[in-house]
Amino acid sequence: MDLPHLTSLQNDHVKRARALDRRKERKESGLFLAEGAKVIATARDAGWPPETLFVDRDKAAGGIVAELVAWARRNGAACHSITPKIAEALSARDNPQPVIGVFKQRWAAAPDPARLNAGDVWVALEEVRDPGNLGTIIRTADAAGASGVVLVGTTCDPYARESVRATMGSVFAVPLAQLTHEGFLDLVRAWPGESVATHLAASTDHRRDYRGPVLLAMGSEGPGLSDAVAGACSVRVRIPMAADTGADSLNLAVATALMIYEIKRASLPLA
Amino acid sequence: MDLPHLTSLQNDHVKRARALDRRKERKESGLFLAEGAKVIATARDAGWPPETLFVDRDKAAGGIVAELVAWARRNGAACHSITPKIAEALSARDNPQPVIGVFKQRWAAAPDPARLNAGDVWVALEEVRDPGNLGTIIRTADAAGASGVVLVGTTCDPYARESVRATMGSVFAVPLAQLTHEGFLDLVRAWPGESVATHLAASTDHRRDYRGPVLLAMGSEGPGLSDAVAGACSVRVRIPMAADTGADSLNLAVATALMIYEIKRASLPLA
Repeated sequence: MDLPHLTSLQNDHVKRARALDRRKERKESGLFLAEGAKVIATARDAGWPPETLFVDRDKAAGGIVAELVAWARRNGAACHSITPKIAEALSARDNPQPVIGVFKQRWAAAPDPARLNAGDVWVALEEVRDPGNLGTIIRTADAAGASGVVLVGTTCDPYARESVRATMGSVFAVPLAQLTHEGFLDLVRAWPGESVATHLAASTDHRRDYRGPVLLAMGSEGPGLSDAVAGACSVRVRIPMAADTGADSLNLAVATALMIYEIKRASLPLA
Repeated sequence: MDLPHLTSLQNDHVKRARALDRRKERKESGLFLAEGAKVIATARDAGWPPETLFVDRDKAAGGIVAELVAWARRNGAACHSITPKIAEALSARDNPQPVIGVFKQRWAAAPDPARLNAGDVWVALEEVRDPGNLGTIIRTADAAGASGVVLVGTTCDPYARESVRATMGSVFAVPLAQLTHEGFLDLVRAWPGESVATHLAASTDHRRDYRGPVLLAMGSEGPGLSDAVAGACSVRVRIPMAADTGADSLNLAVATALMIYEIKRASLPLA
């Protein structure tokens, strides 16, 4: 690989990439970072080339990185070789990946109630706050074949580093949409299948048959789903817990996974 | 609350508590940190008093902290008032909790095959590496009423700060045991019910009836379960995923939760 070699943390490409650790910078530029050959191969499979690719040549011995560089170049990406020190700075971890990409964010349109299939499952997350949870939910949505994730209200950023890492590449595979509370309540009202609120106060067991297309609404860590959303949904369910436990709830990514797998129970055979 | 007031980061109590961020120090002292009134109330409910309690008086306006201090003192704990700056240093977050405790670690004996009930579910984690995953699994085990968690081989530390935080107090409720690989293989061979390996290469759907007591074996993030453990278990199962996804696996805490809830499916009614 014959790439321009960057050696200074003061290089403009490096500085712009590092700035993407700040949410404001990600919002203004519409860009985000993703790292690792396997993750960036997922971007390639999804037809999502980077704007810029940084490669640590000493670590990028395998053929996969060379292939990714060739693909990125064909798609007009600027590709740079970097020093281990720059790789560490871009990765913010001790043992950085050999390849780090700057990608353009993509936001999907919210699901159109008139164009849904019975098998569709959309996951709506109200006010989700933890980027690790959000990324893990995107990963689960991908694994279980959900149609997409809708972020409702003020949420953490799916393109934050911690979220992107937790997706393990699924950020490139799962459509992500955004809605205000009002826009989401409109969607719930127009939804042709069941809209399902997961709520600690519900009296219906979450283990039941769901009539698709399903819109699954999950609340934020701690307070859970707002009364407005819980009340607007057509079904409210609760995940059972052991009676004698002191724990008052499950982790949000865990609860969402239990719900998605329950909704998909009849339609997800072992391949 | 009339407590000795500490103002210096150089105070010995403060220095010893801060040192518990290092695994070596936690191992040598057998101590760990837990923070937050709700979490420490869980410790109280579990009969697990702290060695030391640090209280930020300005934030500890509510009666619950005073109750916790009284309980800690009755049980011989040293209780100190601290400055917001010390609270931040002990908590390592911007907005620290009003109460932080130093607790003695407790390790449970591994389950005795001769003394199990049919409803028991033990979760064994081989080489688990991420303390956030480990803590989330302990939290799920608590919520679903599992009997305990066995750490197999070289794992991350359940008493690391990130793990303790992710448990949301369940670290005080769920028995934690440790076994070597050899010790665990002995346990698997002597297990009176089903021993269940979750493995990507298995051909049995995880949605089946399990004959208790159940020993659930989960592998580490990435490589998954070792061949030795997977081969020793009486059943190998796989969680189905959508055929067209690029994701090759679920997050470990998510997969473990799906397994625990499947094993508990018949015995966990909505309360």
